[in-house]
Amino acid sequence: MKFVCLQEKLKQVLNIAERIITRNLTLPILNNILLSTDNNKLKISSTNLEIGINCWIPGKIEKEGKLTVPAKVLSSFVSSLPNKKIELKVKNNQLIIKCENHQAIIKGLDPKDFPIIPQIKNKPLLKVNNLVFKTGLSQIIDLVSLSETRPEITGVCFRFDPDQLILAATDSFRLGEKTIKEIDDIDKNQIKTIKEIIIPQRTIQELIRVLNEKNSEGKTNIVLGENQVLFDLNDVQIISRLIDGQYPDYQQVIPKEFQTQFRINKQALIENIRLASFFSGKNNEVRLLVKPSKSIIEISSQDIDLGEHKSQISGEIEGVPVEIAFNYKYLLDGLNNIFSDKVNILIGKEMGKTLIKPVGDETYLYVLMPIKS
Amino acid sequence: MKFVCLQEKLKQVLNIAERIITRNLTLPILNNILLSTDNNKLKISSTNLEIGINCWIPGKIEKEGKLTVPAKVLSSFVSSLPNKKIELKVKNNQLIIKCENHQAIIKGLDPKDFPIIPQIKNKPLLKVNNLVFKTGLSQIIDLVSLSETRPEITGVCFRFDPDQLILAATDSFRLGEKTIKEIDDIDKNQIKTIKEIIIPQRTIQELIRVLNEKNSEGKTNIVLGENQVLFDLNDVQIISRLIDGQYPDYQQVIPKEFQTQFRINKQALIENIRLASFFSGKNNEVRLLVKPSKSIIEISSQDIDLGEHKSQISGEIEGVPVEIAFNYKYLLDGLNNIFSDKVNILIGKEMGKTLIKPVGDETYLYVLMPIKS
Repeated sequence: MKFVCLQEKLKQVLNIAERIITRNLTLPILNNILLSTDNNKLKISSTNLEIGINCWIPGKIEKEGKLTVPAKVLSSFVSSLPNKKIELKVKNNQLIIKCENHQAIIKGLDPKDFPIIPQIKNKPLLKVNNLVFKTGLSQIIDLVSLSETRPEITGVCFRFDPDQLILAATDSFRLGEKTIKEIDDIDKNQIKTIKEIIIPQRTIQELIRVLNEKNSEGKTNIVLGENQVLFDLNDVQIISRLIDGQYPDYQQVIPKEFQTQFRINKQALIENIRLASFFSGKNNEVRLLVKPSKSIIEISSQDIDLGEHKSQISGEIEGVPVEIAFNYKYLLDGLNNIFSDKVNILIGKEMGKTLIKPVGDETYLYVLMPIKS
Repeated sequence: MKFVCLQEKLKQVLNIAERIITRNLTLPILNNILLSTDNNKLKISSTNLEIGINCWIPGKIEKEGKLTVPAKVLSSFVSSLPNKKIELKVKNNQLIIKCENHQAIIKGLDPKDFPIIPQIKNKPLLKVNNLVFKTGLSQIIDLVSLSETRPEITGVCFRFDPDQLILAATDSFRLGEKTIKEIDDIDKNQIKTIKEIIIPQRTIQELIRVLNEKNSEGKTNIVLGENQVLFDLNDVQIISRLIDGQYPDYQQVIPKEFQTQFRINKQALIENIRLASFFSGKNNEVRLLVKPSKSIIEISSQDIDLGEHKSQISGEIEGVPVEIAFNYKYLLDGLNNIFSDKVNILIGKEMGKTLIKPVGDETYLYVLMPIKS
């Protein structure tokens, strides 16, 4: 193999492929990246057996070939090179890198031993706009359960409707749901048979990182295989296993009837909760006292050993006076995933289950349970 | 006590005082900060029994008094408040903080139990310009030994001459020395009796942080007490114990006769060494091959398992051809502490001990030992 390209481009792509690699002592080839010439491009592949990544970069192929080399050292070394022309050459299972006044030799392993990254040949299910997709995924990714006791909620749920894609995540204490309408080229026949899939959090984290580096005008193809999903961003492909199991029917958790609701400045609420959090004790408990008659929400917290805090902010309130306590972290997680200036906070009739929604945006909702007092 | 000031100022000062506090379970009052009214200012004191800090901030005293409160919670809480007027009030061993729509109560401990931070009443030894002092300390602080087997080199050596202050640090593998001429108000009588002192690394790190936040035009008074040193920056005082022992006579380590020397672009050398470092193996070994006939320095490294690297840079060379190996980390530490564009690298006749100096700046020198081959 002999291939010539620019350092900048190679660096970006190695960085994407290298991130999923975790140090593997039992199967050393998993620490490696596979370089191969493919259709007049250099193809770079990596896998951790759960997620596989393929990237392609344009350049000049002077000789076809392939090799696997340690991912971390290749990526760090190339990142430190000057942004000039790089020549990659394979000889005797070694990669020879030349760039300006530098020459390096990296010892490789036989590409025959590199695990096969599954190919998914199905027709795409749909196309989604990169910017909307990235934003939506970021709004729910951190709500996924980290405990393995219920594997089905350790991933993000994708529900396919004929005209929208719904993303949901929950750890059973709170729930986030995002509706995406910016989809096209929907394969309605496929969608009929697939109701929903669950994708591991780690895959979505990688997908968000790759989308962050991409042109926000572009589109991502979602392709489904046998227990696999492929996110195809043209020059980057992420292939991942799916999580087995039935995603909980969370619709029934979303409160429909409310005792009290208020509209409030989001940033002011965040700042007041953050200040109250210093005295929220080991339960992270912050209390909201909603006073419709005064149009005031009082925020307070108390820690027996440390002290206490109290503050007030004004809001537009409808309904009865309520006193309710939340884990401040869950409250902040919801508010921080909202991009509007104002939020609606709706306190449910049933056990105080609370719904938070951005004002002027019907595509996002956040549900959280209060702390029982 | 009742005191009113601006949030911004209080936040800065609490941040300085709070940094030295380490969680102490046996003596809980050491987790606290002492607030007291002092000469129309609020005085904030903290100590970890090795280092003590006093800060003063201007404001309006409505009632004299004092109290100690947990440092971390006070500092984090005040940092999160809006930049408005803050009122601090002491009542029943509690600190009541009011700021805009916020009111907090922090439980305190009796100030009688707070450890006394020693006062040093001596005349200052000298005054040093803040910017030069900060820069000089930063150039050597990381060279201090981290091993407690030789306590005397775990600190920075201050040597007082009649017209200069010399700072030195070493871990016995390499040495940095900085000469500061920007001193005044020198007490020549005191200096005669004090040759040198050794100050713990932790104290110098705090001093650098405080100097970073200070006006670079200002000056720091250095005051010596019985086994104590005081750095007086007017509104901030750092008091520290000294390290007992005799600092090694490092002058004899600085090579005086050289087989080869070269002048080279510092940044180019740093980048080439960094690239070589990826293949430097477990000894961190990078080789320099100095070729006077070609005016070239060849940099190379080799790792039996991973691969190898080679590059060349040009320089002005005098002397004989040399091949010499260094721990790349020690080489980079020296180069990164130099601020000139070019450096002189002088390879000693004796065992290849090497001297690195900035070009055009006689106040700094760095000595390192090669790796024996």
